[in-house]
Amino acid sequence: MNIALLCIGDELLKGSTINTNLAFLGSRLLEIGIYPELSLEIRDRKEDIRTALDYAFSRTDTVLVSGGLGPTADDLTKEGVAEWFGVPMIRRPEAEQAIRNYWKNRHSGCAPVHWIRQAEIPEGAEILPNGFGSAPGIHLERGGKSVFLLPGPPLELQPMFERSVLPRLKEHLDNPVQTALFRIVGVGESEIEDLLEPHLNPEISAAYCASPGMVKLFLTTRNRKELERCTDAVGSLFRENVLPPGITSLPQDVLRLLAERRLFLATAESCTGGLIAGQLTAVPGSSETFLGGVVSYANELKMRFLGVSQKTLETEGAVSRKCAQEMVEGIAAKTGADAAISVTGIAGPGGGSAEKPVGLVYIGVKLHARTTLLECHFQGGRTQIRERMATKALHLLRSMLMESAE
Amino acid sequence: MNIALLCIGDELLKGSTINTNLAFLGSRLLEIGIYPELSLEIRDRKEDIRTALDYAFSRTDTVLVSGGLGPTADDLTKEGVAEWFGVPMIRRPEAEQAIRNYWKNRHSGCAPVHWIRQAEIPEGAEILPNGFGSAPGIHLERGGKSVFLLPGPPLELQPMFERSVLPRLKEHLDNPVQTALFRIVGVGESEIEDLLEPHLNPEISAAYCASPGMVKLFLTTRNRKELERCTDAVGSLFRENVLPPGITSLPQDVLRLLAERRLFLATAESCTGGLIAGQLTAVPGSSETFLGGVVSYANELKMRFLGVSQKTLETEGAVSRKCAQEMVEGIAAKTGADAAISVTGIAGPGGGSAEKPVGLVYIGVKLHARTTLLECHFQGGRTQIRERMATKALHLLRSMLMESAE
Repeated sequence: MNIALLCIGDELLKGSTINTNLAFLGSRLLEIGIYPELSLEIRDRKEDIRTALDYAFSRTDTVLVSGGLGPTADDLTKEGVAEWFGVPMIRRPEAEQAIRNYWKNRHSGCAPVHWIRQAEIPEGAEILPNGFGSAPGIHLERGGKSVFLLPGPPLELQPMFERSVLPRLKEHLDNPVQTALFRIVGVGESEIEDLLEPHLNPEISAAYCASPGMVKLFLTTRNRKELERCTDAVGSLFRENVLPPGITSLPQDVLRLLAERRLFLATAESCTGGLIAGQLTAVPGSSETFLGGVVSYANELKMRFLGVSQKTLETEGAVSRKCAQEMVEGIAAKTGADAAISVTGIAGPGGGSAEKPVGLVYIGVKLHARTTLLECHFQGGRTQIRERMATKALHLLRSMLMESAE
Repeated sequence: MNIALLCIGDELLKGSTINTNLAFLGSRLLEIGIYPELSLEIRDRKEDIRTALDYAFSRTDTVLVSGGLGPTADDLTKEGVAEWFGVPMIRRPEAEQAIRNYWKNRHSGCAPVHWIRQAEIPEGAEILPNGFGSAPGIHLERGGKSVFLLPGPPLELQPMFERSVLPRLKEHLDNPVQTALFRIVGVGESEIEDLLEPHLNPEISAAYCASPGMVKLFLTTRNRKELERCTDAVGSLFRENVLPPGITSLPQDVLRLLAERRLFLATAESCTGGLIAGQLTAVPGSSETFLGGVVSYANELKMRFLGVSQKTLETEGAVSRKCAQEMVEGIAAKTGADAAISVTGIAGPGGGSAEKPVGLVYIGVKLHARTTLLECHFQGGRTQIRERMATKALHLLRSMLMESAE
């Protein structure tokens, strides 16, 4: 089975919507060992849908289409696909009923005509129920060519893909692929690649996906023994770096480690300006473990809220090891937290000097009575530098938590 | 001129990298009145590059290619394009010199052979200098078909596009299109559409791009008079909502309005957990205006850092109008800020009740002596709800700043 992705919608080409469906579908497919051959973004025009299907089916036998299933005039996906397959559109009573019910639960009066139009489906197609929107999904298979039509909004596409598409794709995998996914923190992609390489062979392959603070490693094979062997190798190579199952990010893992030890965390951020607190509180349930913190951008706030001494600010400056230490000890003392993080540095583009260049940062992490201080230099633009600072600080706390368990 | 985009790289199809180049190129092209016909993501294989160019050039005359220009073995873009055009690769001394210089400034010793390979360019091509990386860009034009090859990393692609591609595309626009871009805050996309519709006609068209907290409106026409007329209409319809030129986000505009009035800002965030501070400090130079703030996730921090009274927490609860008021007045008093924001609510998915459901939030904004309190209800997942809360709070402060100027 070879798969192409076809994303339909003017908004993708005018830059107003980033195509996150491509990233979602790509990574989910990779997890079952399927690597999409190509992806296309096209405009809401029937002519474009036809030529795109020509091209996609010249390279593949299965196309996942997203977008253009809604009730408005520019939603032409179903008609375009039906024409390409040479089948008529027919109204399906069960789809019509589902749409009327969907409308009734959210609006008053009867569903308008253009809404009911969503119940028109290419003849011979299977309906994929939409639990989160009005437009039904569609699966059509003819002459060895298979197409899945999915709604564009990720909140509708993702559950429909999991429930109705993934199981059907798996049925078609001749010799079911065995895969394993590892989320690795604190090691770079190329280092993982170098260390893992001796353990691979033509029977088992590895793919890497790097995102800020984490590398996803996928192992793919048709041989269960190989998968077990390689999983053991990953476990011993990266014992401290692999996140446990169900944990999908570094901040989530830090919160898990803290919660296991019944510890409370607080933060004192200068140059990251709330980024670390924002990442921690993005995790549901973080309020059980994260007390909060201070964004001490101005020096007066460092003194007032954290007890940083005026002398330190005058003699060493706000971007200094001493200031990071006073910040982390201050926030721990003021909040009673067991663990604390402080960050003070220069994110740029302005504010740097020869002595203290853009990218310089001091990180403090306090765990119980022990305080660790780190000086780092990061490259990149303001956004990247701030992200790397935040990641480094969370990594340091994670390492100290892991050590403290031993 | 018709344009297609072709993005090359395995990482785009396996979901590890979101294709932000597509969104960048799409929105920049739209600003000069060009609407890409289609976009493609393909893998790093010469065969794929060839069939993708067949398809793209069957629909368009200009293709912007990104990715696969680097020094490693899977960088095959130049070879694939040269083969498609039927021209040989030749080593260009000026490109080789630039690469050797790039290496020398960053590493010791001589540049390795595979790096120098980047100086091999399709015959007859023009070199586009890369100010931020080693791989040169390329422009090749033959038989009415034009291709631009750009490096994949956005930090290299974006400046090269602005400096070397955009001016060349503009030369080819037969009847130059006139465009205007407006960034509108505090009004939804459909409301803008409804209000603007009577002012449009076949000579002038509007395109909308909505992102959290802002809608970008593009006007496109070949008639300068029409553009002036419509620009005036936008100005009078959305006088308070259009951001001034050069201001690209709501947090940046809030900081601008504060700086103009020489006011200082502080924040007290509960459920948004640092998101507002993070958005403000993402703006370069924010340290001139933003003092910092407190992320008071736990009630003890609300009391200790902000002076929220125990009585309020016991009788009204942390998610209450009274708590929002004490938070905003507390942070202003403790920091001496002229303006302050507070947010306390339930971001979900847990923590809601019949009386105080997920999505409920109280926002406080203090400007000088005046405090405004707002109760809002937001829908969506945790991430969306937190983003909407942050946007609403910044909007409220912006409105109060605009009013105070009158």
